[in-house]
This record gives sequence, structure tokens and C-alpha cells, in this order.
Amino acid sequence: MSNPTAAILIIGDEILSGRTRDANAHHLAGELARVGIDLREIRIVADDQDAIVAALDALRVRYDQVFTSGGIGPTHDDITADAVAAAFGVPIGIREDARAILLDTYARRGIVPNEAQLRMARIPEGARLIENIVSGAPGFSMANVHVMAGVPAIFREMVAALLPGLPHGLPRLVREVRFDVPEGLIAAPLTALAAEYPDVQLGSYPFAAEGVRGTNIVAKGYDAARLDEVLARLEAEVPRG
Amino acid sequence: MSNPTAAILIIGDEILSGRTRDANAHHLAGELARVGIDLREIRIVADDQDAIVAALDALRVRYDQVFTSGGIGPTHDDITADAVAAAFGVPIGIREDARAILLDTYARRGIVPNEAQLRMARIPEGARLIENIVSGAPGFSMANVHVMAGVPAIFREMVAALLPGLPHGLPRLVREVRFDVPEGLIAAPLTALAAEYPDVQLGSYPFAAEGVRGTNIVAKGYDAARLDEVLARLEAEVPRG
Repeated sequence: MSNPTAAILIIGDEILSGRTRDANAHHLAGELARVGIDLREIRIVADDQDAIVAALDALRVRYDQVFTSGGIGPTHDDITADAVAAAFGVPIGIREDARAILLDTYARRGIVPNEAQLRMARIPEGARLIENIVSGAPGFSMANVHVMAGVPAIFREMVAALLPGLPHGLPRLVREVRFDVPEGLIAAPLTALAAEYPDVQLGSYPFAAEGVRGTNIVAKGYDAARLDEVLARLEAEVPRG
Repeated sequence: MSNPTAAILIIGDEILSGRTRDANAHHLAGELARVGIDLREIRIVADDQDAIVAALDALRVRYDQVFTSGGIGPTHDDITADAVAAAFGVPIGIREDARAILLDTYARRGIVPNEAQLRMARIPEGARLIENIVSGAPGFSMANVHVMAGVPAIFREMVAALLPGLPHGLPRLVREVRFDVPEGLIAAPLTALAAEYPDVQLGSYPFAAEGVRGTNIVAKGYDAARLDEVLARLEAEVPRG
């Protein structure tokens, strides 16, 4: 039995231009690890329909779940919903339950929404809405593709609303040990242990801090005793600085 | 005439697991914008040879340049060089000039490198080395694929060594204006201006701060006068809060 797999697709001109550093993929990566969904790939593409459709087509057949972020607001560059409809070959239009949510949210702020704001009620046919407790305008799930907002505060709440309803696996456990010796001196025992513990993923991350060349070793797997055991053996074989 | 295009491929289990937040793609995105290379896509895949080869095959034919980060150290999970050799169908082995660089770097620290450390001199046949002034072990360019280290301090120096030698385009200029009004009230004039200025990319980024719902409008293009003009017109049409 293995965990469900997932990919994240960020629609993010602002990340590709270097203006913004991704926060949403980083947040969701941590949440997925916690609930036992294995994140295999992250893609960041431009606000371009062909690019979004091509990425959706590749990812939604390869992974159990696909999570998107961005491009569902009211402006001309918000084209994710149309791209999802195109990828699935279904029509898209204003949906009454989404429109009612928007009207209600704006009414509570004393506003009558304009045409651009009502665009956020355009949902591909057959999708299920994802609640947005921050600003009303919903996300949606179309088959295994989950479409969420790019604004980090809204993205986080949508993730919190969505994840409990998806199939979970075994949470991936992580242990980390810092060695104050260079990576090259750890490589040989680490390689031997990696071969001996195929159920544990061993990662090696060199760092340089305060004049020390050190290495963080990360062990990941589903069995806490195995993680502790492999790291204890590594510690016994490598002198700690 | 249009700018060269590029993609970034991060080999990053530590990002997919949520342990680390990407820094290298963010840094390189800013550098590419500065030299007029249009970044179209970022992918983050696991330390898995099939995943790396599949991504390289897709990206290197689609974009003018591909930059990779990670997986070229001395440990068992460092498989990027082998994946590049497999993607290009060329042999890989210890290369004498790379080995000489490593021996020299270690000698200056009074160390004789072990077998794991010398693995970092394994370079696919036909590649050109990328200098690493931080820790010796070089990166390499294979055709249009540029393979660099994952450690941010080393990645940055490799980018600095590599970029001046690549074909540049026109630097993409960016102007940003903050409006203290919700995105929905900017959408209509913004959409009209986007149609009228097809040479300018207009992005809209809502925010909520100190109880204000506002919107940052970003204009990108290659002609400063056009960016100033479109933003001045938008400011005239939208009331600033």
C-alpha cells in the first residue's frame, strides 16, 4: 500500500518575474506531508492559457491529486477557471450557488458587486465549490484538480477546508541530525546505510555557517523506529565535530 | 525580435517535503529579468532519475536555456549529473580538469579527498565546466542545460559566473503602483487598458493589510514610456483610496 501522490501547479507571473517568492507551495507541501499525501512535483507557469492547460493535462493523469494556486480573481489576467474548463472540455459560466455566495459576501460589506467581481462566480460545469471564509469568492474541485486562490491568506483557508475530505495516507515522518563535518566524510557510510534501509529516504544537505562546514542529514519514512535506528547507526560511524 | 526564453529545474526533495522554502529559483528569476532572458516555467522534482530525465527532455527542447539546481554533491542522492548524461545519451566519468580543481581546492584545506568527494568530478562527456569559487566542485553546461549546485551561496556564484556568457535580450522593465481599493473596482479599466496596450503586461495582485483591501498593479514591458503612460491612465480612471 502506498500513499496518494500529488502535484502543485502555481499560476504565477509574479514568481517567474522574480517579484515574489513562493509561499503557497511551501505551505501546502508541509500540510501534505502531515496528512500522508506524497508531493512529487511543483510547477510554476505563466498566466497563459496554453501553458496552464498543458501543465494540467500532464499532471492530472500522472498524480492522484493536483492543487492549483492563483488566477481566479476578477481581473483580465485571471484565466485559471477557463483553462481548467478547456482542459476538461466542459462549458463554464456563472453558477447560481457561487453567485449567491458572492452577493451575500458583498452585501455584508454594503456593496453591490460589479460585472468584474461577479466573474468570480464563473465555475466549470460539474465542479464542486471550495469554501473561502476570507473573502467569499469560492475555489473549486474538478475531478482531481483543486483550484484555489493565490492570495496566501485565502489559499491557506481553502487548503484547510479541502484537505480533510481527500484520501489520506500514512504521515511521512522526518528526523534530522546535524553533523559538524563536511558532506564528503559522511558520504560513504550514508551510501551504505541507504542501501541497507531502502524503506528510509536519506537526504544530505551541506551547509556552511560560522566557519564550519557541516551537513544536515534528513531521514524520512513511515516507521519511527527505523528512522531512529538508521540515524543512530550513522552517528556511531561518523565522528561528530 | 523577442527575448531568449528559459526554464528552471530544481532537484529538491527538501522542498517537496516542505522542509525548505525555495531560494534559488527566486534569486535566478530576478537575475534573468535583469539580463533580458524570459523565465517561462519553474519545475521542482524529486531526487529521482526518471523524474529528472523526463523534466529535462520536456524543458530543453521547449526553451532556449534550462538552469538546474541541486543534486551534484558527493552523496548517494546526488544523481543530477547522471540524469543529464542519460537525457543526452552520453557517457559520464571522472574528468581530469574537474579532478584537478577538486584536488587543488582540498589541498589548500590540507585534505586528501576521498572517493565520495572525487565523485564530484564526474562530468557528462562534452560538457563545459561552470566555476565554483566557493567550494571548488564545478557545475557544468551541457548544450543549453546548465547544471548548478543546490547550496544557495554556491548557486549564486555559479549564476554570476554563467550568465554573462549567455545571449541576453532586452531587460524587462517593471513599474508597480499601489491602489487602496479592492481589485474588483480596478478590473474594468484595467481590462480595457490591457487590450489597448498589448505590448505591456498588466498584473493585478490584491492584498489585505491593516484592514484595507487594496491592489498592487504591476506593469511589465520593454519601453519605459509605455509603462508610465498606461499606469498614469489607470491612476486617472481609478480613485485612489
